[in-house]
Amino acid sequence: MSSTFGTLFRVTTFGESHGKAVGAIVDGCPANLRLSEADIQTQLHRRRPGQSDLSTPRDETDAVKILSGVEGGLTLGTPIGLLVENRDQRPGDYAQTADIPRPSHADFTYQMKYGIRASSGGGRSSARETIGRVAAGAVAEKILKERYDLSIVAYVSSVGTIDAPAISTATVKKDLTREAVDRSPVRCPQKAAAAKMIALIEQTRDRKDSVGGVVTCVCRNVPVGLGEPVFEKLEAELAQAMLSIPASKGFEIGSGFAGARMHGSEHNDPFVRKGSRLGTRTNNSGGVQGGISNGEPLVFRVAFKPPATIGLPQQTATFQGKEVSLAAKGRHDPCVVPRAVPIVESMTALVLVDMVLRQSYRS
Amino acid sequence: MSSTFGTLFRVTTFGESHGKAVGAIVDGCPANLRLSEADIQTQLHRRRPGQSDLSTPRDETDAVKILSGVEGGLTLGTPIGLLVENRDQRPGDYAQTADIPRPSHADFTYQMKYGIRASSGGGRSSARETIGRVAAGAVAEKILKERYDLSIVAYVSSVGTIDAPAISTATVKKDLTREAVDRSPVRCPQKAAAAKMIALIEQTRDRKDSVGGVVTCVCRNVPVGLGEPVFEKLEAELAQAMLSIPASKGFEIGSGFAGARMHGSEHNDPFVRKGSRLGTRTNNSGGVQGGISNGEPLVFRVAFKPPATIGLPQQTATFQGKEVSLAAKGRHDPCVVPRAVPIVESMTALVLVDMVLRQSYRS
Amino acid sequence: MSSTFGTLFRVTTFGESHGKAVGAIVDGCPANLRLSEADIQTQLHRRRPGQSDLSTPRDETDAVKILSGVEGGLTLGTPIGLLVENRDQRPGDYAQTADIPRPSHADFTYQMKYGIRASSGGGRSSARETIGRVAAGAVAEKILKERYDLSIVAYVSSVGTIDAPAISTATVKKDLTREAVDRSPVRCPQKAAAAKMIALIEQTRDRKDSVGGVVTCVCRNVPVGLGEPVFEKLEAELAQAMLSIPASKGFEIGSGFAGARMHGSEHNDPFVRKGSRLGTRTNNSGGVQGGISNGEPLVFRVAFKPPATIGLPQQTATFQGKEVSLAAKGRHDPCVVPRAVPIVESMTALVLVDMVLRQSYRS
Amino acid sequence: MSSTFGTLFRVTTFGESHGKAVGAIVDGCPANLRLSEADIQTQLHRRRPGQSDLSTPRDETDAVKILSGVEGGLTLGTPIGLLVENRDQRPGDYAQTADIPRPSHADFTYQMKYGIRASSGGGRSSARETIGRVAAGAVAEKILKERYDLSIVAYVSSVGTIDAPAISTATVKKDLTREAVDRSPVRCPQKAAAAKMIALIEQTRDRKDSVGGVVTCVCRNVPVGLGEPVFEKLEAELAQAMLSIPASKGFEIGSGFAGARMHGSEHNDPFVRKGSRLGTRTNNSGGVQGGISNGEPLVFRVAFKPPATIGLPQQTATFQGKEVSLAAKGRHDPCVVPRAVPIVESMTALVLVDMVLRQSYRS
Repeated sequence: MSSTFGTLFRVTTFGESHGKAVGAIVDGCPANLRLSEADIQTQLHRRRPGQSDLSTPRDETDAVKILSGVEGGLTLGTPIGLLVENRDQRPGDYAQTADIPRPSHADFTYQMKYGIRASSGGGRSSARETIGRVAAGAVAEKILKERYDLSIVAYVSSVGTIDAPAISTATVKKDLTREAVDRSPVRCPQKAAAAKMIALIEQTRDRKDSVGGVVTCVCRNVPVGLGEPVFEKLEAELAQAMLSIPASKGFEIGSGFAGARMHGSEHNDPFVRKGSRLGTRTNNSGGVQGGISNGEPLVFRVAFKPPATIGLPQQTATFQGKEVSLAAKGRHDPCVVPRAVPIVESMTALVLVDMVLRQSYRS
Repeated sequence: MSSTFGTLFRVTTFGESHGKAVGAIVDGCPANLRLSEADIQTQLHRRRPGQSDLSTPRDETDAVKILSGVEGGLTLGTPIGLLVENRDQRPGDYAQTADIPRPSHADFTYQMKYGIRASSGGGRSSARETIGRVAAGAVAEKILKERYDLSIVAYVSSVGTIDAPAISTATVKKDLTREAVDRSPVRCPQKAAAAKMIALIEQTRDRKDSVGGVVTCVCRNVPVGLGEPVFEKLEAELAQAMLSIPASKGFEIGSGFAGARMHGSEHNDPFVRKGSRLGTRTNNSGGVQGGISNGEPLVFRVAFKPPATIGLPQQTATFQGKEVSLAAKGRHDPCVVPRAVPIVESMTALVLVDMVLRQSYRS
Repeated sequence: MSSTFGTLFRVTTFGESHGKAVGAIVDGCPANLRLSEADIQTQLHRRRPGQSDLSTPRDETDAVKILSGVEGGLTLGTPIGLLVENRDQRPGDYAQTADIPRPSHADFTYQMKYGIRASSGGGRSSARETIGRVAAGAVAEKILKERYDLSIVAYVSSVGTIDAPAISTATVKKDLTREAVDRSPVRCPQKAAAAKMIALIEQTRDRKDSVGGVVTCVCRNVPVGLGEPVFEKLEAELAQAMLSIPASKGFEIGSGFAGARMHGSEHNDPFVRKGSRLGTRTNNSGGVQGGISNGEPLVFRVAFKPPATIGLPQQTATFQGKEVSLAAKGRHDPCVVPRAVPIVESMTALVLVDMVLRQSYRS
Repeated sequence: MSSTFGTLFRVTTFGESHGKAVGAIVDGCPANLRLSEADIQTQLHRRRPGQSDLSTPRDETDAVKILSGVEGGLTLGTPIGLLVENRDQRPGDYAQTADIPRPSHADFTYQMKYGIRASSGGGRSSARETIGRVAAGAVAEKILKERYDLSIVAYVSSVGTIDAPAISTATVKKDLTREAVDRSPVRCPQKAAAAKMIALIEQTRDRKDSVGGVVTCVCRNVPVGLGEPVFEKLEAELAQAMLSIPASKGFEIGSGFAGARMHGSEHNDPFVRKGSRLGTRTNNSGGVQGGISNGEPLVFRVAFKPPATIGLPQQTATFQGKEVSLAAKGRHDPCVVPRAVPIVESMTALVLVDMVLRQSYRS
């Protein structure tokens, strides 16, 4: 259960990593939106592994097919079926783990919850599950772009202990684009930091280890008034969305955990006139107050753990409790954060489009 | 909208800070649970302001009345109506702010979203809204306690820059109780740190400022298998629940943001036999893998910003954009984290009881 | 569970027949709606028993209190708490039935489902549960009235075998008002039929028996485009709403069961220009096509069984299967349909307001 | 929106009549259920047009493919993707109607609601949309069969003015099987009535007209306790499910509209010991009391209007209000009720399986 996200713009995903197909049904998309497979393919392409040496070499073309809900290039208001067939199936690579739950993977918990699990590749807990989200997110983004010129840009702000310096407000306003982010294979727009991150990832990969990182996301032109108090505050929905992404371990908005170390007199965001609207001088709130967007850029960060699959041998136990040594064969992704960037953007788009539609009945 | 939380155990809260009453309807509570007003009053009492010098002196008795759903001390399986009348109404204290949206409060965003807002005290964005959650959470906790002896204990792990040292695994296992937590008015079970926190809060209060902090929550005896992939992973639901609490800015589970700085070889939790069950040697996962509980203690942290209401004067603007200086009159809570402890526990209970009921149909 | 109705305009009801109170929380009501307790009281008064000799003499004042969500006579956009305290509690009247499940009542099924049940008066299965619906429906009606001048009028179209003649289209258009309906205590606007219905009810009451009936509901000025294919078609939501009313056994829209006996050539509603809009010449569709309102009056009928509580002795069995004779003491409602009229209207309003809000994001 | 049905067993359908594919995602199906495409194909085959001369000759093979959620013949507990590709696309047949909304079709309302509509064949309002429901219903039925030996059998009880005689209780208990129903192409198990129905349909078809009918559904071995008061009573959910089927106009359970004509003394179902359980002597309740199943057979009826597409010329208007004559070309289904039988069964299975899972957490 719970493969559905959203209240008015509802996305239901399906598909195991090594099954026949993965995909999503998007229900509640407004009619008369111009939509083609190419619109969706762009983000799917950014999500795909094998884009650089930094990532897993598994070759996935991930071509999306629109099965329904669109005619003559326009949405009909009916459910949009999105399908991506699985081509590169290599179940053999994983066969060794039938009796050994991989440490920090979901083998053990799926087996305990369901009494069964997909025989290979992580099934629904695999990163491949996110294809449906990214495809649906691309539809959501089109709506946000066309109606509000709303932009969502995520980037890698740290890899392991390498932190990119804080981005200036001016850059946030203008220069932070997906193009700028994609200039580096590690998807960090700050050159010096990016170079260090790449070096760390390569070194980690060569040591057959993995490393974690943080993705920062910035949304501009977010209309004032989004978010549904009290349980579906904007930040609460974003937190749920982000923590639903595989491998994520934390979420913070605005000042976040650093804000917990501050005094109110430095943390408060005083109001100030910004042209015809009221804005805030600082943005420790990260674009929300009381669970509702305030018109400032939405800024939040998502922590990702190091990938659980590593080539280094690990002392662990079989399902029966017998001690064994386990070392993953083949090549694996040493760091997920570059590929997590479009996934974070997609989940953000799904949250925002739903909130936009839910707010619209009030005006 | 969105004053309802949960799928099978559904809580709907209502009530403005300075209106007639606040409360909650709990729908989906199993029948034949022994339940009295006293069961609920205990946690409401812990949530109440005015418990020590550290907190706001507003005297709220917060006596809960059960309106429905219980007969002869047993739940009927029907909706449980919970009502707390508001007694201490002092709208005058806030009247000055009619034209001035308080910085980092929800005055501005509520006004923009709804075109109207409660004239005093924050309305639904007030901490008083959490009474309904705490009352409902007390019902949830009873179920978890009776069925699984599941225990939920939260405590203050930092105030401003004062961090309590990490609690040892042994303490987590045995000595971390609500009684131990409540021994200190700041609700930090570690004496030395507690003393420093109290000093910082008093000093902050005397300076008419406020300060943030972090609450850590530990759940023991969580059954394996809770959590609903993919969008309602256990950590995703917890993240939503925590970010829906007023003033929260961040959530992390297990290793959290620190985990993003680690390598897989140190972060992975290898499996090991623990008596008759399979456990993990370390708990960087914080009790979840792939969105499903794994039987280890659930450990997560929630960041709270410093309260927005401060006595210090702030340069800000009116709704019309005119610059003004604003300083809150009266006494205000300089730090919310001690009172946030039972709220974090209650929201945790609401997440867990819903997941327990949702899992039950599988067995 | 399932005491909540609606997607955007969400109503949660609570309360047992003989407990402390009954009521509802309305979440998602648009802000800035003018609303007072008097607005709600009118329909509650129409729902109340004891309005005429035809009904049960139980005296219920049913005074509603607004607990939250309204300030200065305007809705705030936050949950509206509605409370009606129970005054006339006479549990003794029902005590005999502790061991005897009353035939065609819910005693047996509640006991089997929950393992417990309210000790008297039917608990949640009592007609008293509908107070929350009617209170919430009154709020919904205000919105529909103000935005669309939408009118909802229900009336009694048959009692037992007494059928009121079909109402002409002209009457539907103009003369069918609540005032016209309320002129007769049986709430049938057609005098001759009303007289016969009254005679039948009185005779039934004197025989200590009960009798069923049908309520017809007509909605005018329903905007085109309401209803959410495929599972939440307008008629599907109405059907659910009507069959959720205690004692209802059937629902039909437009031609209904009679339509199943017709040929397409007589049943189809051809299009015809009606002023500036396209309408249909006939209205066998009852105002919906493909699950979506078409601008014609919404017309549907709801069948109610005879009340299960009768003074006549019945041969039945105890929970343990022992044969017994059961005869209800005191006076009971011999026919529910006159009082069902405002309940049908209220549930209709709840369906329509939710559909109106859900449709609004498309425009 | 609203292409999703169910709370724990959730079905989301997609697909236009003449698009690439139709199908469904089933989320929340318990794991370890034995499931193959053949299990689903049987009911799809019964739903298919072209099974006899009585139906439309459009040849649809409707072969279902399981895309996900099943491995090695067992469900994984993850979403089950079900896909049926559309083969027989003949958009030309319908092209004439671009400017003419077909009377009593959904052309007009879809156009008004969405501002666009599928160019041919009815899009989502077509009977073809029900393929997803039937496929999902077949999964639901397997669970009900395996856990409770619950059987769901629907049959045609009237066509136009031809009524099959009431089926005896004994027959309901034993002889009413799908095999018995399918012996006649009109799916009426009573030979004499079936012959008259067939004659009426053939005569109607030859006159290029259409005719309505009624489907009766009987469920045996329904466990006591299903249904969620107050808004999701078992009969309320069934009513919604049935009225969501294309062309349905009415629903009644047990005595239904006839019950509204009765007295309580004849309508009440007295309790009587039935072996080890308590049952009722009569079943005017149709298997539910207070919205909860009581262990007696569930019996309800669904009215279907005559198909809107007829070969006879109709005087109607274009979207612009211009009068025109319209006559459908080609051959069309003169009566939908025989094909509605498996659809009614499928929707019933979806309601019951969801209620079974929702009830399970109480035991």
